[in-house]
Amino acid sequence: MIHARQLRLVGEKQLRLVSVSELPPLPAGFRRLEVLYCAICRTDGKMWKSGHRDLILPRVPGHEIAAQDPVTGHLFTIWPGHNCGLCQACLSGRDNLCDSMKITGFHTDGGFSTYIDAADSSLIPAGHMEDARLLCFAEPVACVLNCLNRIDLQKGERVVIHGGGVVGLITALACSTREVKVTVVEKNELKRKQTTPFCMVNGIDTVKNVTDNGFDIAINCCDAIQAFRNCIQQLRKGGRLGFFSGLQKTHTLDTDTLNLLHYHEIALFGTYGPRRTHMVEAVDFCRSHGKKLELLLEKTLKPEEVPAVMEKVADGMALKYLIDFSRLRKEEEQSQEEFKL
Amino acid sequence: MIHARQLRLVGEKQLRLVSVSELPPLPAGFRRLEVLYCAICRTDGKMWKSGHRDLILPRVPGHEIAAQDPVTGHLFTIWPGHNCGLCQACLSGRDNLCDSMKITGFHTDGGFSTYIDAADSSLIPAGHMEDARLLCFAEPVACVLNCLNRIDLQKGERVVIHGGGVVGLITALACSTREVKVTVVEKNELKRKQTTPFCMVNGIDTVKNVTDNGFDIAINCCDAIQAFRNCIQQLRKGGRLGFFSGLQKTHTLDTDTLNLLHYHEIALFGTYGPRRTHMVEAVDFCRSHGKKLELLLEKTLKPEEVPAVMEKVADGMALKYLIDFSRLRKEEEQSQEEFKL
Repeated sequence: MIHARQLRLVGEKQLRLVSVSELPPLPAGFRRLEVLYCAICRTDGKMWKSGHRDLILPRVPGHEIAAQDPVTGHLFTIWPGHNCGLCQACLSGRDNLCDSMKITGFHTDGGFSTYIDAADSSLIPAGHMEDARLLCFAEPVACVLNCLNRIDLQKGERVVIHGGGVVGLITALACSTREVKVTVVEKNELKRKQTTPFCMVNGIDTVKNVTDNGFDIAINCCDAIQAFRNCIQQLRKGGRLGFFSGLQKTHTLDTDTLNLLHYHEIALFGTYGPRRTHMVEAVDFCRSHGKKLELLLEKTLKPEEVPAVMEKVADGMALKYLIDFSRLRKEEEQSQEEFKL
Repeated sequence: MIHARQLRLVGEKQLRLVSVSELPPLPAGFRRLEVLYCAICRTDGKMWKSGHRDLILPRVPGHEIAAQDPVTGHLFTIWPGHNCGLCQACLSGRDNLCDSMKITGFHTDGGFSTYIDAADSSLIPAGHMEDARLLCFAEPVACVLNCLNRIDLQKGERVVIHGGGVVGLITALACSTREVKVTVVEKNELKRKQTTPFCMVNGIDTVKNVTDNGFDIAINCCDAIQAFRNCIQQLRKGGRLGFFSGLQKTHTLDTDTLNLLHYHEIALFGTYGPRRTHMVEAVDFCRSHGKKLELLLEKTLKPEEVPAVMEKVADGMALKYLIDFSRLRKEEEQSQEEFKL
């Protein structure tokens, strides 16, 4: 008998730590891994706060995962999806756009659990990591790498990033490793203060506003329509825009701003999630830049502490929370041993 | 004494045929050409109908020009601009985005005249053309080639074009010469009827609506926001959008539609006017496809007939009108000869 614990979303703002005495049968082509750590993404927070049209409850959230094989002890992160492999998108290597994509932690149970069942094809081997927690950054890093590849970022270019949350700062870090000059715009003073250590160490300039309109590249790392408008307005003619974050619903953009894309021959690249290959790149990135990424950690939580922070996560007012499932599993195993004795 | 005749825009809806007894001195680096034909662009119609914030009157409109050197008789078309050659855009070969661009027929006097002064660097030699009238298509063709190059159109792709006016149909023609499958969407039944001969000859499918959403490429060739929305919605994931026509002012686009650019990883390429190099390509295109382009001609007008058609042009309800200045010049020359006798 495998005994598991899970944080299960059962209704709006209802995330419950439950015990699972019987695990479902493992589908063919899947592997069952032990989750060590899972990070909480703002998307998890939003699902918790207001659900989603396509979300079926109950569901175990979580898609930023560090896990290990229980037999070999090998470390993995997980490409958070299961794709068909047969549609046009899959066949052209754009597996993140698969027509029948099942997203981990959304369509299928995710990493807020002591174990996870992941498709063999979605396992990303991590080799040795000094600090396995940092592997939880692989998924957001991979999203960023997808964006930077799409916009074909070149050495020496001037980049403005709108949104100074975790993803905005990871984007800035990834840009700075490619020898470009980055400016991050974050309206919220509290958030600017919160991220000062990360920015200081990495030489990243975070400001309240920019008035310049000569950037080569702009990337929106928040869902505000005004930030998106600023991205368009602050690009030089012939500039490139990474449309990284989806925008808040029921807003509108005026055609005067939209027309700048036309008059200035701006190229806009929509970018959504990571391809599997970006996860592989991202693991290397996490290994090389672990010490820097560490400054984006807010706190490592016990599973039972998670419900209390979800509001803060949903509102984007925290750095990266991790959930530690390794300790819980050890405790469970210990108590089972004791039970046997 | 050179005696010239010009159609001069002197106020809203006031286009006057005037005689010029003394021509301005020719600036250094410019050449004075005889205009043979000038086509009327919808932009000319809009300037005529409602002016433009940056337009200073009086102004001679016209930027789709077939002209000849009065001494050598060599045929030219004109890249409708004068760029600085020194700004970042110019230095990177994107001369159409020059920071101090002077647009022919807008910032400087254009082709609605028996003569035109054009920068040497903007003259595009046309070699021999059986029908010089077709050279007036070079500028709109060049705009289209800029767009197709920006979106990197590939053989076999499926293209939807919104807007079945002259430019939409030139775009369709240019697409079809690259072995792609084109569908043109035009809401207006009258316009669809008007363009039937062109579409039949060139095997172009013009329809009222499409419900498909699997196009590889979408191009907006009209200024309606709904057409732009349809472009986004009808693209497959990973599709590409040519943002060819500026959109009507004071409209808005909802974020639900905008977000499809993000979720579907669409790449949008703003495209504005032609680079000088596109004009060179376009002359070849006009020579190769003259018989097809001819079907887009509405009528060849005498200069005095022009004011009466401007409303129709502004409303996009006509095919391509040409103004014949060669005959007028001959008549003028003859009467001068007679005067001397």
